[in-house]
Amino acid sequence: MNAEGDAGTGPRAEAAADAVHRARAYLLGAAEPPAPALAAFVAGHGPMEAAERVRRGDVPERVAQETEARRDTDRSERDLARAAEAGYRLLTPEDDEWPAWPLLSLEVATGRGADGVAPPLGLWVRGTARLDESVDGAVAVVGARAATEYGEYTAAELAHGLVAEGVAVFSGAAYGIDGAAHRGALAAGGPTVAVLGCGLDAGYPAGHVGLLNRIADRGAVISEYPPGAPPARHRFLVRNRLLAALTAGTVVVEAGRRSGARNTSSTAGVLGKVVMAVPGPVGSATSVGCHELIREAYATLVGSVSDVLSTVGRLGDHGGEVTAPRPRRPTDELGPQALRVHEALGRRRGLSPEAVAEESGVPLARVRALLPELELSGLAERCETGWRLAAGVPDRVISPGSGTGTGENRPRTG
Amino acid sequence: MNAEGDAGTGPRAEAAADAVHRARAYLLGAAEPPAPALAAFVAGHGPMEAAERVRRGDVPERVAQETEARRDTDRSERDLARAAEAGYRLLTPEDDEWPAWPLLSLEVATGRGADGVAPPLGLWVRGTARLDESVDGAVAVVGARAATEYGEYTAAELAHGLVAEGVAVFSGAAYGIDGAAHRGALAAGGPTVAVLGCGLDAGYPAGHVGLLNRIADRGAVISEYPPGAPPARHRFLVRNRLLAALTAGTVVVEAGRRSGARNTSSTAGVLGKVVMAVPGPVGSATSVGCHELIREAYATLVGSVSDVLSTVGRLGDHGGEVTAPRPRRPTDELGPQALRVHEALGRRRGLSPEAVAEESGVPLARVRALLPELELSGLAERCETGWRLAAGVPDRVISPGSGTGTGENRPRTG
Repeated sequence: MNAEGDAGTGPRAEAAADAVHRARAYLLGAAEPPAPALAAFVAGHGPMEAAERVRRGDVPERVAQETEARRDTDRSERDLARAAEAGYRLLTPEDDEWPAWPLLSLEVATGRGADGVAPPLGLWVRGTARLDESVDGAVAVVGARAATEYGEYTAAELAHGLVAEGVAVFSGAAYGIDGAAHRGALAAGGPTVAVLGCGLDAGYPAGHVGLLNRIADRGAVISEYPPGAPPARHRFLVRNRLLAALTAGTVVVEAGRRSGARNTSSTAGVLGKVVMAVPGPVGSATSVGCHELIREAYATLVGSVSDVLSTVGRLGDHGGEVTAPRPRRPTDELGPQALRVHEALGRRRGLSPEAVAEESGVPLARVRALLPELELSGLAERCETGWRLAAGVPDRVISPGSGTGTGENRPRTG
Repeated sequence: MNAEGDAGTGPRAEAAADAVHRARAYLLGAAEPPAPALAAFVAGHGPMEAAERVRRGDVPERVAQETEARRDTDRSERDLARAAEAGYRLLTPEDDEWPAWPLLSLEVATGRGADGVAPPLGLWVRGTARLDESVDGAVAVVGARAATEYGEYTAAELAHGLVAEGVAVFSGAAYGIDGAAHRGALAAGGPTVAVLGCGLDAGYPAGHVGLLNRIADRGAVISEYPPGAPPARHRFLVRNRLLAALTAGTVVVEAGRRSGARNTSSTAGVLGKVVMAVPGPVGSATSVGCHELIREAYATLVGSVSDVLSTVGRLGDHGGEVTAPRPRRPTDELGPQALRVHEALGRRRGLSPEAVAEESGVPLARVRALLPELELSGLAERCETGWRLAAGVPDRVISPGSGTGTGENRPRTG
């Protein structure tokens, strides 16, 4: 790992930070995301050395393949100048504002061999909101472009209600459900964050340029694609991993039979995030995808803001982990429900979520949401028969019944 | 057990059958259903002896309590005469037409200590359909009286489609969803069966007298309450156990927040039957109960006839168990999916439905339906960690991959 970004303050530090940003801007343009080999190479050598070696072609075979087509085209100066002019900024892992903790899920999943979920090398950001703060317990609200009035109304209502409860709403700025979600969030005063599958200045979708301006005023518009990068079908799928990673859960409001909903849910599942779906009239073609997700247990049914909050654990059970230092004791960070779920797990035998719910007294929908969270924190693991304590983690760290040591009363840092 | 009904044919046999019917008619009027102590007493001593001893008061304490208020009022002659006049019949466990196999679930559950699910002592039947044949793979379609147009339309469409696929539709003849389900079934030519919480001649609900006539023409109207018994709120809840027991699964089409849907689903769950629920628009108060059932995993979401068929296992996986003799080998009766689920279970360690689905390759929704069926057949049991083979049942009776010995190609008896 590198410490190039930790150079303190002052003119020299600023120059160093600028150099890091130039290196990252170059790397972001040098490969089409997701670029797992390049991401690992940058993580191992730091952005300055990595950029220099990519330029020279002095890299391992797989990194060479990812960067072959674009490594000779360095647009970093141009991109940074365009961004500065338009009021955008480049956010990198070296910056305080980097949402390191939620993006860690991408690193963990990639490390486990999951495809297509490599972490981003940086994020172009336009807007007023601090990204590290916006992601805290945020929820993605997404769905079909060809939405019905019912779907758009429901998306807007959900987003409005979530923002009113202090939850930032992330979406993809597309027509239909995405746009309705952003509008509902804005109507409640924001914040809302749009994650794009193209450059921030691509003006896409054309009918949402005004909406994107309003989102930037009250939240943020972000993308890992350099300024000028045009939208492309595959980029929206790649973008979905960021929506999933940056939020605690994803709500699919309307989706057709062969929609991206399955992709969204499987990406979220790989990252250990909660997938939720809103039901609709059974005759509606745009609810079929949601009903499939629910029927096949890929998604939890949500019909209200409080359903969403309880599914992602915002009803008095979630601390502000995002900007906090990692806990010293593995279970220090857990809220009371997570703690009860953790305490219900055994060391060897896997338990079904139903059995964990019975044992812990925590509602099944919450158990389903908490188990992947515990897995991500390294406290639980899946096995053939269900869920158990992760190997190497002390069980029953806190005696049963104790309500101390939970995260929600911990003072916020940052 | 008794053999009073097995007296062959001829005038003497008819007289014996009449005597049994008189005894059962008396017993049906002697206690308010469900009467678990009386049911056990009748099962143990036979209806003739049981009726005689109830009359005399020569019964165990709990039977005495159940029959105390009514044992001196013998309306059996009057009830049988009224029934004969109106073209009803009394169906008893001694009759060939008695749906013994599905009603066995009530006996099993009562034997395990479940409350309020004692088997009926007989059933008054009005209609053309043979009840033992109607129950074969039947589905109950029920829901709110104060239904919406959407709910009634959906109930009618589902019922119509199920009947078109050869599945009889059972319901409760109430206003709203029940009536729509019966009408949809009738539009497809029937059969449909109404299970009432009052006497067959109570004329209730008043607006459905014509509908009940049409149901009797194409199916059956049944009740365990004697002719003249008025409807009562508690009788509808008691009636629900018969709807659950006589069908392979129950579909709740619309239900409010504090509706009978929870009661229906818990009764069906106790009996090892599948509970399904139809989603609707999230703003609709009459879909809230359905959404709760789905969200809390009490019910499987169904949005189409094929969803219902696959959930109850009618897509090439169900034999005609109803009138068949009990199988000699415990697994002889199983269809190929049930066999695969059975083969996936272990002897000690309980598996979650998810793990069973993965192991067997059978869809999760089907696994959830088949496990309680296997439990009811004594082939599987629940334990702390999930599902395993029942103690005492040989595992792997049929070698994995073998498709022989399944129920669906067995010739129908009766």
